[in-house]
Amino acid sequence: MSTASHRPQAGPLRWRDVSVIDYKREGHASFRDVTRQVLFDDPSLACQLRYFEIAPGGHTTLERHEHAHAVVIERGRGQCLIGDRIYDVVEHDLIHVPPMTWHQFRATQEDALGFLCVVNAERDRPQLPTETDLAQLREDPDVAAFIRT
Amino acid sequence: MSTASHRPQAGPLRWRDVSVIDYKREGHASFRDVTRQVLFDDPSLACQLRYFEIAPGGHTTLERHEHAHAVVIERGRGQCLIGDRIYDVVEHDLIHVPPMTWHQFRATQEDALGFLCVVNAERDRPQLPTETDLAQLREDPDVAAFIRT
Repeated sequence: MSTASHRPQAGPLRWRDVSVIDYKREGHASFRDVTRQVLFDDPSLACQLRYFEIAPGGHTTLERHEHAHAVVIERGRGQCLIGDRIYDVVEHDLIHVPPMTWHQFRATQEDALGFLCVVNAERDRPQLPTETDLAQLREDPDVAAFIRT
Repeated sequence: MSTASHRPQAGPLRWRDVSVIDYKREGHASFRDVTRQVLFDDPSLACQLRYFEIAPGGHTTLERHEHAHAVVIERGRGQCLIGDRIYDVVEHDLIHVPPMTWHQFRATQEDALGFLCVVNAERDRPQLPTETDLAQLREDPDVAAFIRT
């Protein structure tokens, strides 16, 4: 990706020369209605900056990994699970996902949820929960309701 | 800085547990009416995420360095100089400052300019222009007008 010095929006939270791509390759990871845009992927930066957008009713994958996430909500409303806590989130909220912490983002049924996410350029692959992990997470009824698929 | 998992806004683009600090220590670098907030400074992330806000009529320091910047405008209007080009910038514009490139941000006289900035956690110190650098920059009358102090 070559990076121009200045890229104005081409539409709301869409940019010239930034492709709107699938959140993940289809596989056995569960997710729904999520797009991904890589805004900065610069070899002189040790991190990437991405913009994710979840359509109303959609959600990201429930996963964890050794790398951390630094997230800034940019539009809409939703919720996120970080560890065993569920938070309501709105524009300009800051969210930190520490290493090896289960996390998932959901838009509300009415609103999209868009957020910036900083990650290390070199990072490990996400891990999906095992049946044992899921059983443990589901011990909390609120978490069980949140991670429904 | 300990990082809570979720930090909602405490006011417009102000956050709980995030100090609004001086842009730089006072010195011979020229700047005016700029605040800095370090949003994420996590040892497991290779980058920091900061939020800068320039009051109407204010500006950052004209400088360059080996490290790059990845910038997302969050509020207001202004202009930035990147190398020898001046760009008008508004909310959600993306700006990339390559290594060793002169740059400066200015709010308009009427609007504040707020922006997120990703930088490597380990980075070199900014360099200020010498008289020779300034003379070279001022060869372009638009740049000369922009970098007025």
